Amino acid sequence: MRFEVLKKDSKTKARLGICHTAHGSFQTPAFMPVGTQATVKGMTPEELEELGAEIILANTYHLYLRPGHERVRRIGGLHPFMHWNRPLLTDSGGFQVFSLNSLVKVSRDGVEFQSHLDGSRHFLGPEKAIGIQQALGADIIMCLDECTSYPATHETAEQSLRITLEWAERCREAHRTPEQALFGIVQGGMYPDLRERSAEALMQIGFDGYAIGGLSVGEDKDTMFRVVAHTAPFLPEDRPRYLMGVGLVEDILEAVQQGVDMFDCVLPTRNARNGALFSRAGKIIIKNAKYADDPLPLDRACSCYTCRNYTRAYLRHLYLAEEILALRLNTIHNLHFYLAFMRDLRQAIAEGRLESFRESLRTPGEPPRIPAGEEDGNPLAPRGRVLFLQKQSCAGAQPNLSKNL
Amino acid sequence: MRFEVLKKDSKTKARLGICHTAHGSFQTPAFMPVGTQATVKGMTPEELEELGAEIILANTYHLYLRPGHERVRRIGGLHPFMHWNRPLLTDSGGFQVFSLNSLVKVSRDGVEFQSHLDGSRHFLGPEKAIGIQQALGADIIMCLDECTSYPATHETAEQSLRITLEWAERCREAHRTPEQALFGIVQGGMYPDLRERSAEALMQIGFDGYAIGGLSVGEDKDTMFRVVAHTAPFLPEDRPRYLMGVGLVEDILEAVQQGVDMFDCVLPTRNARNGALFSRAGKIIIKNAKYADDPLPLDRACSCYTCRNYTRAYLRHLYLAEEILALRLNTIHNLHFYLAFMRDLRQAIAEGRLESFRESLRTPGEPPRIPAGEEDGNPLAPRGRVLFLQKQSCAGAQPNLSKNL
Repeated sequence: MRFEVLKKDSKTKARLGICHTAHGSFQTPAFMPVGTQATVKGMTPEELEELGAEIILANTYHLYLRPGHERVRRIGGLHPFMHWNRPLLTDSGGFQVFSLNSLVKVSRDGVEFQSHLDGSRHFLGPEKAIGIQQALGADIIMCLDECTSYPATHETAEQSLRITLEWAERCREAHRTPEQALFGIVQGGMYPDLRERSAEALMQIGFDGYAIGGLSVGEDKDTMFRVVAHTAPFLPEDRPRYLMGVGLVEDILEAVQQGVDMFDCVLPTRNARNGALFSRAGKIIIKNAKYADDPLPLDRACSCYTCRNYTRAYLRHLYLAEEILALRLNTIHNLHFYLAFMRDLRQAIAEGRLESFRESLRTPGEPPRIPAGEEDGNPLAPRGRVLFLQKQSCAGAQPNLSKNL
Repeated sequence: MRFEVLKKDSKTKARLGICHTAHGSFQTPAFMPVGTQATVKGMTPEELEELGAEIILANTYHLYLRPGHERVRRIGGLHPFMHWNRPLLTDSGGFQVFSLNSLVKVSRDGVEFQSHLDGSRHFLGPEKAIGIQQALGADIIMCLDECTSYPATHETAEQSLRITLEWAERCREAHRTPEQALFGIVQGGMYPDLRERSAEALMQIGFDGYAIGGLSVGEDKDTMFRVVAHTAPFLPEDRPRYLMGVGLVEDILEAVQQGVDMFDCVLPTRNARNGALFSRAGKIIIKNAKYADDPLPLDRACSCYTCRNYTRAYLRHLYLAEEILALRLNTIHNLHFYLAFMRDLRQAIAEGRLESFRESLRTPGEPPRIPAGEEDGNPLAPRGRVLFLQKQSCAGAQPNLSKNL
């Protein structure tokens, strides 16, 4: 993998870049839609491309359990398996092992856990995490780490970090596929000294990119951004930085200004399936009775397929009728919202107007590129006021695994 | 509406035609995918067009209850509501009133029933059935009829027929929208004399097209085709004939040879969602373990999007993982199977080779247009042998309404 920084913002640490992988390039700052089970829920790969997704993420934990990584390997890897021929990242599986299982047994060797599907017992260690990801064949793979829980004492966070660093070394050693970039993951809880130590130790080992993990786990936003701001400067300039599981577009904007390049989050897709739709003029809960006769699109200023062709009245009907098309149209709209935001953000950095871009989102007035739609068709509604939908954890795991729809 | 018979088969009663409606034309014999709640489950209108659907059906009963026909009217009718700009047919709602409700009260005025959604009480009579369908705005609308249950005595069937004919007259009188074609529905149970009487009485009233109703309600196939063969000749040559709720492609072929022009059935879409996939070489139950590592497409000879891009192994994985994409890819394949069959059938009639087309489907050997795929990748599997998936009722109603996915 080759990472080029194309431009740096003069007033913040934001940067514009491009990552070249074995399956093509993606521009940064990048948002990666989440395709947990080798599919971004409801979307075809062609639709993702049309929406502007340049890289997507799949979850090693889920694919290891079902269909099994060896099965994916026999088909030729995740790319042909899921018919996605662009850049692909897999996580290590560690996060889901910890977040989806109440009974895990961690040792220096790795972690023992039970499948959420059938209760069968499994073991995941650093070598195995790399082996599974090699079978899956993503362009970017991640080290196994222990995501420090929150809150944690300094001692607990340090102990957890020590294991993560040991595992990082063993992952580096187990890594034998040069066409797959390997990223290290910074841990250390909310403690600046541990974050610094973590970042420096990982750099000593040497990785193709660096992730900031262990955030968006229950801490408040200020704490999270303090950790990001403290950690990012210790990471090498010439490698991409990936803030895992974050978040709302306002969070992405903030982290980009701290020098982060890559993001993933289930919010746009999961909220879509729950009928919670993003718009520049505020949130739309599509089941609300006020939309029953609403002939407007979700957002008149939005150019997505859903907004070009369907009314709120129809989207509400589909949602209440529990139709598959509701999930599709909502997902298209929310992913478009995120991916268009990323395009605008990159353009703003490229044109040296990140500050005005940011201001346009926070204060009433005409946004720089996309005119704000009016919530409920009221042209007098304040604009740019309530950009963001809700505060919510953005971890890749699904709270209710039995209900994917 | 204008119906042209373009060609008649020399050996059977099959005919090739074209129907011109207010929203364009469709070729006959035609298969109409079912879009119960103003959406063909899982498909966008663009996908339906790409699959070759020229006309689709929506269910008045469901749309009357939710979102309500007046709501649809305010958006401009079903066409803009669901973003489908081609021919559209609505049924009268009668069939669902009877099949989804255990407590109905029928009188000469109409029928009282309870909503399956909330238990609220409603009344549907001939004038109201026409009024609702006028609000929905389909290109072809249907008379309210009483679908005679099976088995029924001659007396019961006659009584039921008498009501249907009264309602047909009242529907004709209530019909005020010349841009909407109105079809009458032949009833009469399995009794040839009643079917004949029904057909002739409807012709006296005069309709734009004639449906054969009350079939595929539990009778055996021989009985059904005897009734079709007996009824069709009594219907006028210059009007389209529509066999409601039928069926498997073999049934469609048989009925076409009796002079039927239009069909609808939920089988391709419902079976798709249940993981039962049609193929020229036999049925595929995609969850079966034997497909776990199968790198072949569903049908190597199939040109649908699903078969061009995905393996059976992946489709099995998506299905077991309960992914939305499983429903989509399966539906695309099954609808393609039906719609490609209809195209081939029309081509065979056009080229005067219906008999050889039919034979190619029934006996081993190379089919005339689409080479048979090999089930399980075994090139020695007999071809053309097990064309059809399963015997199953094909009524438009859904047995389990709470589970649309």
